[in-house]
Amino acid sequence: MQPDEFRRIGHQVVDWIADYRERVDRLPVLSPVEPGWVRSRLPELNERGEGFDGLLADLDATIVPGTTHWQHPSFFAYFPSNASLPSVLGDLLSTGLGAQGMLWATSPAATELEQHLLDELVGAMGLPDRFRGGGVIQDTASSAALVALLAALHRSGTWRQSGVDGTETVYVSTQTHSSLAKAARIAGLGEDAVRAIAVDPVTQGLDVDALVRQLKSDVENGRKPVLVCATIGTTSTGAIDPVDAIADVCAEHDMWLHVDAAWAGPAALCPELRHFFAGVDRADSFCANAHKWLLTAFDLSLFWTAHPATLVDALTILPEYLRNAATESGAVVDYRDWQIPLGRRFRALKLWSVLRWYGLEGLRAHLRRHIDLAEGLEARVEADENWSLVTPRSLALLVIAHRDGDETTRRAMDAVNASGRAYLTHTVVNGRFAIRIALGAEATEERHVTAVWEALRMA
Amino acid sequence: MQPDEFRRIGHQVVDWIADYRERVDRLPVLSPVEPGWVRSRLPELNERGEGFDGLLADLDATIVPGTTHWQHPSFFAYFPSNASLPSVLGDLLSTGLGAQGMLWATSPAATELEQHLLDELVGAMGLPDRFRGGGVIQDTASSAALVALLAALHRSGTWRQSGVDGTETVYVSTQTHSSLAKAARIAGLGEDAVRAIAVDPVTQGLDVDALVRQLKSDVENGRKPVLVCATIGTTSTGAIDPVDAIADVCAEHDMWLHVDAAWAGPAALCPELRHFFAGVDRADSFCANAHKWLLTAFDLSLFWTAHPATLVDALTILPEYLRNAATESGAVVDYRDWQIPLGRRFRALKLWSVLRWYGLEGLRAHLRRHIDLAEGLEARVEADENWSLVTPRSLALLVIAHRDGDETTRRAMDAVNASGRAYLTHTVVNGRFAIRIALGAEATEERHVTAVWEALRMA
Repeated sequence: MQPDEFRRIGHQVVDWIADYRERVDRLPVLSPVEPGWVRSRLPELNERGEGFDGLLADLDATIVPGTTHWQHPSFFAYFPSNASLPSVLGDLLSTGLGAQGMLWATSPAATELEQHLLDELVGAMGLPDRFRGGGVIQDTASSAALVALLAALHRSGTWRQSGVDGTETVYVSTQTHSSLAKAARIAGLGEDAVRAIAVDPVTQGLDVDALVRQLKSDVENGRKPVLVCATIGTTSTGAIDPVDAIADVCAEHDMWLHVDAAWAGPAALCPELRHFFAGVDRADSFCANAHKWLLTAFDLSLFWTAHPATLVDALTILPEYLRNAATESGAVVDYRDWQIPLGRRFRALKLWSVLRWYGLEGLRAHLRRHIDLAEGLEARVEADENWSLVTPRSLALLVIAHRDGDETTRRAMDAVNASGRAYLTHTVVNGRFAIRIALGAEATEERHVTAVWEALRMA
Repeated sequence: MQPDEFRRIGHQVVDWIADYRERVDRLPVLSPVEPGWVRSRLPELNERGEGFDGLLADLDATIVPGTTHWQHPSFFAYFPSNASLPSVLGDLLSTGLGAQGMLWATSPAATELEQHLLDELVGAMGLPDRFRGGGVIQDTASSAALVALLAALHRSGTWRQSGVDGTETVYVSTQTHSSLAKAARIAGLGEDAVRAIAVDPVTQGLDVDALVRQLKSDVENGRKPVLVCATIGTTSTGAIDPVDAIADVCAEHDMWLHVDAAWAGPAALCPELRHFFAGVDRADSFCANAHKWLLTAFDLSLFWTAHPATLVDALTILPEYLRNAATESGAVVDYRDWQIPLGRRFRALKLWSVLRWYGLEGLRAHLRRHIDLAEGLEARVEADENWSLVTPRSLALLVIAHRDGDETTRRAMDAVNASGRAYLTHTVVNGRFAIRIALGAEATEERHVTAVWEALRMA
């Protein structure tokens, strides 16, 4: 494809996306297709090349009907993952440049823009100064948790040379995201090494007394506490762990404190919401997903650590073919040593597009709008005789259940999802089936919130 | 940004990329900027939103000068990483859709297109039928190696429950990519668990006798052999390990055989090059990067395993909030369980764009053209009195040195890189400094090869 063909077809593709975004609110949110339907309609690989029209036609005929529409205004499932249009263009520029930023030398701008934006966000989000110079973009919060754990293991002993010794122990709550248990498994610790500490039944936040008791018992039994993960905004109910109290415990046991704020993290841009982040100034690492509430197309997790040298030392391996003068000068950062893969996309460009287009004011307005919508819905649920909140509203997340019990609640959710008019997912809180209503899609307006509420009540 | 604004600005962005690709051959390949230059020119975050023009202006003024141009026709460093223009558009469509394919249910088309393409490629690349149904897209070959190792560890015992036991051992050659050692470190095995087996000094392929001796000694000492990585096309010199003989050894010791063909893998599309892949039919897993020689924008690694159930069983964790009817029916694949992160982009779309636009014929022609160019250059090096090949040409990779020794070779490379007219990187072979000339950028023509050769001879 020559640049001139790209110009012509590229305009078509841009128009296709614009059309898609204009009509997405009229599509069923959750794809209604059966397993195998998409695949049965896909063509064999062609021997000879073809133009782009066939692909665009198959997109309309097969891919779009087989897609669950994450950019739909009535997407309330999981956490919405915004791919705002400025971020789409920033990502396009990155792909168009086609640079690969594994080393500073392989694309200085990719590294320096990333350092710059992550440092600027330390200020904008009120994060501690100790995170300056310690910021990096990870693909997802799962990978962020994994590299935090690896750095913690490295700090704790002879891990790099001789591996884990079978005593290292990781502390999470029963509500911590499953990526932490997965990280422990990947790191060779096994399920036995993960302590899922109980939570307060009302707040769903980690019970610090229970943590202390577990630690005492583990230490007496010769285990080595390595890391605690505290969550600000759990996936299930948006619960907030008592980070400050957990930091005290970490200090006592010389443990790494990782704070997972994958969903709620961007709220730190709003000064009035900073109290949710109390204690983060004592964290060893912190993660917030720009690809959820911060309008940046997946994938882009913001990760900071107060100990970048430890992280780099944990992960670096320098074969001859990667040696270069800039690295040896010590004057540059090579981000390959901050992550699992070697190669890396120029992801900072899509973040920059978002930060410039909306401005900090615009981003704060976006966050506040969803919280306002959630407050409005909260009032309606509280006033309803059949439905109630299972846990207190957390920012823009509501968790609700029907008074008639689990079956009724589940039936209402299934009916709404099957209608295609909204998409909701569930959780279980203290043994009770509950519907999560996660507000946060960019296109969501008051009328979409009203519609999903009415649909639930009718169902 | 509304769809209509996106239409207008999107066309501008497409045109910017077309212009960039038209002029990239006139830019210095290796960015000449000093550390800190880019960052010193970056603006603070803006409070108020702004249009897209400022970002485009900064791209021209700061980002492009700070970029090493991987899409330049005279990029001969590392391995070229093509971001062909059809793949750029496929990636744009994926970002525009903004779907997230962690589960089949969260976007059926993302999963089923990926399954379909990976299965079709089994046929097109002459891979063994046992890989059908075992294909998945990973971000990079590093992650592919890591998941292969985790599946191997899981297969070998009680890893999931109790973690590694300190005896698991991984076998690579001295020429294996550093990502394998990194994977072993991440998996908690430590450097002590990695055996770097000697290679044949001429072919640079793994010495199977040395592997057998090391295994015997390790087993006698109570170590548990878990995985061997064989490489088809090493990073340093393009060497090819004797996969078939290694497979015999693996069978004897019940070890997982991972074949890393990150760079050379796409050559399997050409029947006349299939002999390089002898033995792959006995591999437990195989990796080839579409984002190198297969014209697909970074990142996209093709990974197949003959044991997908083992891989899934190694990595799966099912919290309540991810439960859904489709998963529980057992009729679908949830690709989150095949990889390190939870979330995943719809990467199959950019691969599909490439496969359709070029067709299998076009892709084979692309591969053969680079091999032809490399053969032509090989003849010129052989006829030269000052330069010689350090190892035999491997496909489209040449490794050469000047007869006057390391200093002269290095000076020549540095002079070419500093001129901005081409970009070369080096390796060390049997203690000798050597320049790698990796052909494979889509835009590279005969004249670019001639130019880099003349520049080296003059330098």
